Amino acid sequence: MWNIDQIYSWRNNLVDKFKNIKLEIQYNGANYYGWQKQRNHISVQEVLQKKLTQLLKENIEVIGCSRTDSKVHALKYVCNFKSKTNIPCEKIKYALNPLLPDDIVVLDSIEVDEMFHSRYSCVGKTYVYKILSREVRPVFGREGIYHYKDYLCVDKMKVAAKYFIGKHDFNAFKSSGSSVKTTIRTIQSINIIKKQQEITIEVTGDGFLYNMVRIIVGTLIQVGINKIEPEYIQTILKNKDRKLAGPTAPAEGLYLKEIYFSKKDLL
Amino acid sequence: MWNIDQIYSWRNNLVDKFKNIKLEIQYNGANYYGWQKQRNHISVQEVLQKKLTQLLKENIEVIGCSRTDSKVHALKYVCNFKSKTNIPCEKIKYALNPLLPDDIVVLDSIEVDEMFHSRYSCVGKTYVYKILSREVRPVFGREGIYHYKDYLCVDKMKVAAKYFIGKHDFNAFKSSGSSVKTTIRTIQSINIIKKQQEITIEVTGDGFLYNMVRIIVGTLIQVGINKIEPEYIQTILKNKDRKLAGPTAPAEGLYLKEIYFSKKDLL
Repeated sequence: MWNIDQIYSWRNNLVDKFKNIKLEIQYNGANYYGWQKQRNHISVQEVLQKKLTQLLKENIEVIGCSRTDSKVHALKYVCNFKSKTNIPCEKIKYALNPLLPDDIVVLDSIEVDEMFHSRYSCVGKTYVYKILSREVRPVFGREGIYHYKDYLCVDKMKVAAKYFIGKHDFNAFKSSGSSVKTTIRTIQSINIIKKQQEITIEVTGDGFLYNMVRIIVGTLIQVGINKIEPEYIQTILKNKDRKLAGPTAPAEGLYLKEIYFSKKDLL
Repeated sequence: MWNIDQIYSWRNNLVDKFKNIKLEIQYNGANYYGWQKQRNHISVQEVLQKKLTQLLKENIEVIGCSRTDSKVHALKYVCNFKSKTNIPCEKIKYALNPLLPDDIVVLDSIEVDEMFHSRYSCVGKTYVYKILSREVRPVFGREGIYHYKDYLCVDKMKVAAKYFIGKHDFNAFKSSGSSVKTTIRTIQSINIIKKQQEITIEVTGDGFLYNMVRIIVGTLIQVGINKIEPEYIQTILKNKDRKLAGPTAPAEGLYLKEIYFSKKDLL
């Protein structure tokens, strides 16, 4: 299936030799309204495009692997752009990093096949959600962890997590405000680890609906405080009703951790 | 041996019933000139005393377990003070935390024996030093980690660490500007762990000279970049010459992690 970006890429290649350059970046989302460029609000995409345009002296449009919500972080985010630059691709990171603000950094820059598209080539993602589970508030990394005061039973949360695995209709785990063709998604794994006072919930899937990870986490927390039983996850999935699931967990605990471009890596 | 604090405590107890209250606190040191109260610079001790005085409506003097340097953090710091308060000691943390700034928190407050003294009763400490070992700069928790760009050979650092274990004269690992009776200290253990891009160096000892942990870390880094061989640690210790040791590693990577009040816990 041809899409507009691919047609555009093909046309550009007829006119002149464009390189397709992939960036792996990391960002602290605390000060951004997510990845996607928008009016009146600062986004990671806007900052990156502005700095690439300044560096390469071309008008650069960056394609991202995912919209991330306002304040959500990325341990690894993949994006790509077309450029006629003569700078060797692997050197772009060294030239770009000093121009970027402290909370965005390029981990890697490489030339990729012209058909590579950060969004359409992506076959899966891993998100990680961090909870500080203790009575008193945090003093370190407050913008990157969700502080939860009440006791959470991690064993019960682990039992509940198993019900999400597999191919399901996740309509109950989607915030309104996004239009998608289908609400069916496959979750490969959910790993919950407690280390001292920090609980991490790692979710891998082929795709995620709007706020899906945060609603899954919010629902697992309801299990952790004994408000719902682990088995109730089945009922929520079956009824497809957002009102049955837990609240959307806050954005500051969420990190995009890994992006998969091959089904082999995802499984 | 009686010291001035103990005599003071004894006298106070004759006059009226004072409680000896121990606090376990955690603080992010980024915005403080260390623990110790001083003129013209904000310290953790000053903030804590001011808030305790406000809460308890008595003039409170807090005794800390250790001076920590400017910008150094504490995962667990122990201090104590005398008070005639009627507030149950274990409730003080709930009353005090809302008064404290975001970067200081009380983990626990309990009444202890009147002879307990945070500094004199302390028989050992564990410090942890965090290094982000990667080419590109950090975007998360920049104020709590030391970013080191060049490759560090952790295996060599582990070999070097062993030479510090035991009772030695650590004169070469002391910054000038402090007067101590003896520069002999005992190090119980040094554990170096690499997890992805983060290296943590955990040092446990019966006491530490001024900047001792940071100079040990700075010297281990010299080993990690092959500037000195692990065996050279023996020469530095033997010569007792500060100039032979590595530079003092920056304060932002250092955390006081544990305080021991019983020799049994230390070993």
